[in-house]
Amino acid sequence: MKPDTLDGWERTHLSTDVSENDVDSEIMVMGWILRRRDHGGVIFVDLRDRKGLLQLVFNPEFSEESHAAAHAVRPEWVIAARGIVRIRPEESINPDLPTGKLEVFVQELKILNKSEPPPFPLDDDIPPTDAVRYKYRYLDMRRLGGVRDNLLVRHRVVSLLRSFLNSEDFIEIETPFLTVSTPEGARDYLVPSRISPGSFYALPQSPQIFKQILMVGGFERYYQIVRCFRDEDLRADRQPEFTQLDIETSFIEEERLFDIMERMMEKIFREVLGIPLTLPFPALTYEQAMSRFGSDKPDIRFGMELTDIGDIVTSTEFGVFKTALQNGGIVKALKVDRGERLSRKDLDDLRDFAAVYGGKGVAYARIKEGGEWQSPIAKFLSSSERDLINQRVEAVPGDVILFGADSFKVVNDVLGNLRNHLAAKLGEIPANEHKFLWVTEFPMFEYDEEAGRYQAMHHPFTSPWEEDLDLLESDPGKVRARAYDLVLNGSEIGGGSMRIYRSDVQERVFSALGIDPEEAQEKFGFFLEALRYGAPPHGGIAFGVDRIIAILTGAESIREVIAFPKTQRATCPLTGAPAPVAPEQLKELGIKVPAKK
Amino acid sequence: MKPDTLDGWERTHLSTDVSENDVDSEIMVMGWILRRRDHGGVIFVDLRDRKGLLQLVFNPEFSEESHAAAHAVRPEWVIAARGIVRIRPEESINPDLPTGKLEVFVQELKILNKSEPPPFPLDDDIPPTDAVRYKYRYLDMRRLGGVRDNLLVRHRVVSLLRSFLNSEDFIEIETPFLTVSTPEGARDYLVPSRISPGSFYALPQSPQIFKQILMVGGFERYYQIVRCFRDEDLRADRQPEFTQLDIETSFIEEERLFDIMERMMEKIFREVLGIPLTLPFPALTYEQAMSRFGSDKPDIRFGMELTDIGDIVTSTEFGVFKTALQNGGIVKALKVDRGERLSRKDLDDLRDFAAVYGGKGVAYARIKEGGEWQSPIAKFLSSSERDLINQRVEAVPGDVILFGADSFKVVNDVLGNLRNHLAAKLGEIPANEHKFLWVTEFPMFEYDEEAGRYQAMHHPFTSPWEEDLDLLESDPGKVRARAYDLVLNGSEIGGGSMRIYRSDVQERVFSALGIDPEEAQEKFGFFLEALRYGAPPHGGIAFGVDRIIAILTGAESIREVIAFPKTQRATCPLTGAPAPVAPEQLKELGIKVPAKK
Repeated sequence: MKPDTLDGWERTHLSTDVSENDVDSEIMVMGWILRRRDHGGVIFVDLRDRKGLLQLVFNPEFSEESHAAAHAVRPEWVIAARGIVRIRPEESINPDLPTGKLEVFVQELKILNKSEPPPFPLDDDIPPTDAVRYKYRYLDMRRLGGVRDNLLVRHRVVSLLRSFLNSEDFIEIETPFLTVSTPEGARDYLVPSRISPGSFYALPQSPQIFKQILMVGGFERYYQIVRCFRDEDLRADRQPEFTQLDIETSFIEEERLFDIMERMMEKIFREVLGIPLTLPFPALTYEQAMSRFGSDKPDIRFGMELTDIGDIVTSTEFGVFKTALQNGGIVKALKVDRGERLSRKDLDDLRDFAAVYGGKGVAYARIKEGGEWQSPIAKFLSSSERDLINQRVEAVPGDVILFGADSFKVVNDVLGNLRNHLAAKLGEIPANEHKFLWVTEFPMFEYDEEAGRYQAMHHPFTSPWEEDLDLLESDPGKVRARAYDLVLNGSEIGGGSMRIYRSDVQERVFSALGIDPEEAQEKFGFFLEALRYGAPPHGGIAFGVDRIIAILTGAESIREVIAFPKTQRATCPLTGAPAPVAPEQLKELGIKVPAKK
Repeated sequence: MKPDTLDGWERTHLSTDVSENDVDSEIMVMGWILRRRDHGGVIFVDLRDRKGLLQLVFNPEFSEESHAAAHAVRPEWVIAARGIVRIRPEESINPDLPTGKLEVFVQELKILNKSEPPPFPLDDDIPPTDAVRYKYRYLDMRRLGGVRDNLLVRHRVVSLLRSFLNSEDFIEIETPFLTVSTPEGARDYLVPSRISPGSFYALPQSPQIFKQILMVGGFERYYQIVRCFRDEDLRADRQPEFTQLDIETSFIEEERLFDIMERMMEKIFREVLGIPLTLPFPALTYEQAMSRFGSDKPDIRFGMELTDIGDIVTSTEFGVFKTALQNGGIVKALKVDRGERLSRKDLDDLRDFAAVYGGKGVAYARIKEGGEWQSPIAKFLSSSERDLINQRVEAVPGDVILFGADSFKVVNDVLGNLRNHLAAKLGEIPANEHKFLWVTEFPMFEYDEEAGRYQAMHHPFTSPWEEDLDLLESDPGKVRARAYDLVLNGSEIGGGSMRIYRSDVQERVFSALGIDPEEAQEKFGFFLEALRYGAPPHGGIAFGVDRIIAILTGAESIREVIAFPKTQRATCPLTGAPAPVAPEQLKELGIKVPAKK
C-alpha cells in the first residue's frame, strides 16, 4: 500500500487546541497513532501530536470509507484526519486528559506513513532499558513525559536565561570553535588542519580567553550559551560535549555579579517551577565550607555539620588520632542524630565507603544513657576526652558519632561524602527544597604532589586577592583567589572568578605555576599583549546548563536532558560516532593511524 | 605607578544614560579614555564606555587632586571618575553627541589600568589595514561604528529570530558537534577519538540528519542557531566555521513554510532597518530563473533579463552560434539599455570576464540609427536574423546587445554574472532596496562529468516531486526536487527542501546516486531504520546567519560580523590557531604526523 501525501491538506488544530467551542465544526488533525481499539464495530484511535492526545472515532454509520481504512492502521502510523468534533458520551469521558470530553468523528482518513511495530510500546509508563532507548531515541522522544518533556523545559529555561540577560543589557557574542588549547586542566579534542599539516585546532573547553578578550574589547557585558568539549575519562554523569552558559562582565565586583546571577536564578525557579527563592543567597568561604561540611559544594538542605576535635585529642593515647595529628592531619567528628537507626552492618560498611575516598576507615561510637560510648575505640580514649567530645558535638543518647582522622583532604572527603550518604539513607534531605549557596575565597593554587608543583585551582586567569599578591612568590599556597562557585543542593552548578587584568600580575601568576616567560609568551603571548592595552577590571562565571536543567526537571542524569547524548565510552548510540574514515581523508590531512589488528 | 582597584566603587551611569535630569548630581562613570586635551590649564577627557561618549572636565579650581592625576592619563587608559554633572557652556556644546550638552566635573579619579599607545588611533574614521585590525581585534572592537556595532546588530537580529520562532511554537534543540560524516558534499573536519584509536568524529556541516530524526521523534517544529563546519578551500567570503539558522517542520508543505519564513524576514527588516517588506515574496522556478537571469540566485532589483535567440539563429551560417547549437548548447542575448555608455575597452574586457566562467568570449553589437549593428559579428548574420534579434530584445539605438553561445551552463554562467557586473558598473542597482525571491523546483540531480555519475544538487534527503518518482530510474536528470532557495539581492541566504520520509523512496534515491544498498546501510542504516518507524511528512530550511547580518549591516564581508573570524588560510590572526601540539597528545590519540622539514 502506497502512503498518501499531504497534497494540500493543512492541519487546523493541534490536539490540545481542540475545545468545546469546536463542537460540530469540521477540523483537520495530524499525528501518530498511540492506540487503536475496536469496540462494538466502531474503531477508536488515540492520536498523538506534539501537544498531546485526541480521540478519533471511526464509525461505519458515519463514514463507511474511513472506517474501512482505519482497520489497517497500527500504532505509530502517521495519519491525517478530517472530521467533526463531538462531545463524548458521559461514560467515556476521560477526566485525566485536557481533551478527555471530546472526540472527533472522522470523515476522511489519510495514511501518511506506516510504521513497523515499535521495539517497545509507547503508551507504557515503564520505559525500556537505556540501551534500547538511546538506539531508538526518536521513539523514546515520542513518549509523553520523558526526554521530550525535558527538552521542552530546556527550551523554556534557555529562552528565559536569554531574555533575562538581554534585559540586563548583556549581549550574546559567538566565539570560535576551531581554536587553540587553553590551560583549563582537561584534555583537548584536537582537529587536524588540512592546510597546515601537522598543526591542529583545539575544540574549546570553554571560551575563557575569548570572553576576556571581549572585555578588553569593551563589550562589558557578554554571555553565550555555547557547546564546550573535554576529552576526559567519563565519570558518572559527564558528557564529552556539554553546554555552558558563559558570562563575563567589566567594571563590577563580586557583590554586583552575584546579585545579577541570583535574580536570574530566581526568575527561572519562579517561572519554571513556581518556586520562590529568597535572595540574597547565603555564602560561605572555602575555609568555612570545608570546616563545617567537609566539602566545597555542601548540600545545606540539612545540618549534620562536622566538628573539629583535634584540640580535644591533642595529647591522646589513641594511635589513629595521634598519628594523624603528628602528621599534620586533622581529627573530625560527624554526629548523626538518632544514629541508632543505623545497623551494625551499616556501620561496618563505613570502612568500604571510606576507602573510596582514600580513607583507612571511620571509627564510630553509639551514645548510650549517661553519655556512655558503645564503641570499639571507647577504651583508647580517656573518659574526659569522651565527655568533651560528647559536649562539643552535643550528643544525646541514641546518637552516633563518626570519626575521621587523617590528612585534611582525606578526612573532609570521607566525612563530607558520608554526610551526604547518611542524610540520604536516613531520609534527612527534604525533597522539593532548593538551597543555593555561594562558596568564595578558594585557594589560588593547590599543590600537585605528583607533578611537584602548584596548579591553578580554578584557572590561571583568576585574580588573587589584592592583599595576598605579595604571597605569590613567598607562599603561594596561602594566596586566596577571587574565585567562587554557585552550589545548588550539593551540586556545583556554576563557577567563576574576578580575573587578572594587569599583565604584570598575570606574568607573576604564570611564574608561580612554573610556566616560564618563554612558554607563557609562546602559548598566551597574544593574551598578555591584550592585557597591555587597557584591559578593564572584569570577571565572570559559567554555568553547566545540562546540570541545571537536570535539577529543574528532576532528571536522574544529564543524558535525559540532551537530545542525543553520548555513552560513557563517548560513542553515539544512534549514529555510531566515532567511526573509521576513508584513507583519502587521512591522506589529505597528512596523518597516519596505526593499522587495525 | 600601580593602578587603582575598584574597591567597592560602583558605576552609577553609563555615558548615554546621563541626562539633564542629572545636572548638579554626583555620578560615577567608568570606561576608556578616547581623547585627552589640555585647554587653558583645564584637562578635557572624552570617556568612552559601551554606550558612547561623555566629556569629563578636570579643573584645578574644582579639584586640584584629580586635575593633577589627569595629567598622567593617555588614550585607552581605563578610569573611573566621580564627579558632578554640569551643562556645558553654550560654545562647547556638541550637537552630534547624545551627551553633547553635558560634562562631568571630576572630583575623584581612579586609574584602573594603563595602556600602551595603541597601534592605531581609535578616534580616527579611517580604519587601519585588515591585518592590523584582526591582530588587534580587541582594539578594533572598541572603535565606534565598526565590528562593535555589527555585533550589536547581530545580537539584536538573533534575539528577534528566536523570539519570532518561539512565538510560532518552534523549539530550539541542540544537536551533537561530535558526530559522523554526512553527505553534504563538502569536506569534513575530523576529530580523532582517543578511546577508539583510528576512529574519528566529524564536525557537522549541518545538523541535517539530526533535525530529521527530531521530526521522526515528533517535535514537529525545531530550530537551532548553530555553528557548522566545512573544510573547504576558502573562496572570497567563506569561513571554515559559520553560523546557521536551522529549521525543520512536520506536517506542512512549501506554502505554509514559506509564509512563516517570510513573516520572520519581515519582522527582522521592519524592526532592525525600519524597512517594510511586501509579502508574499515572488517565486521563480529554477527553469525560469536560469532562462530569464542565467542564475539560480538572480538579483531582481533590476531588469536586464536574458533572451534565448536559439530559434532565430537555428540555421545561421555564423560558426560560433552554429557550433554551440549543434553541440546541444544554447545562444542567448543580453541587451544593455544605453549600452553606449560602455567603452571599447569595457567590451574588449568581456573576453577575460567570460574566461572566468569557462566561456570563450562574449560577442557584442552596438545598435545604431535604424537598427544597424556596429559589431565584429554583424557580417556573419543575415539582415533578417539581426532584425529578428533586435525585435526580440527590443533594442533601440544606443543599446548594446551581448551574446553568449556555448553549453547551457557556460552561457548562463557568463551572461548571468555579466548581468550583475554591468548593472553595478552602470549604476543600475538601486541602493537600499531589498528584493527577496524564492527559487523553486531545482533539479534533483546534476551530472558530474568527472565522476561519471549523478550527484544530489541539494542533498540526498531531498524529496523528489511525487509525479517525477518514476523517472528516478529511467531519467534521473529530469527529476525535479522539492528544493528551494531564498535569495536576497542576488545572494542565496537560505535553502531547503521537503524531505523524503519514506524509506523506500530514500533507498531509490541513494541508488540513483550510485550508493549501493550495502554502502547506504553502512553509512545511513540508522537513518533508514528511523524512516521505517512512522516518519511524518517534513521539510525545512537553513539560513546563513553571517550572510544575513552582513546584508543587514551593509558589511562588505562576513568577517565584519564575526567577532573572531579566520583568514582565507583558515588561521586565526589573534590566537594563531591552528598550531602544533605536544607529541604526548598525538600519542594518546594514536596518530602520527609527518616530521616537519
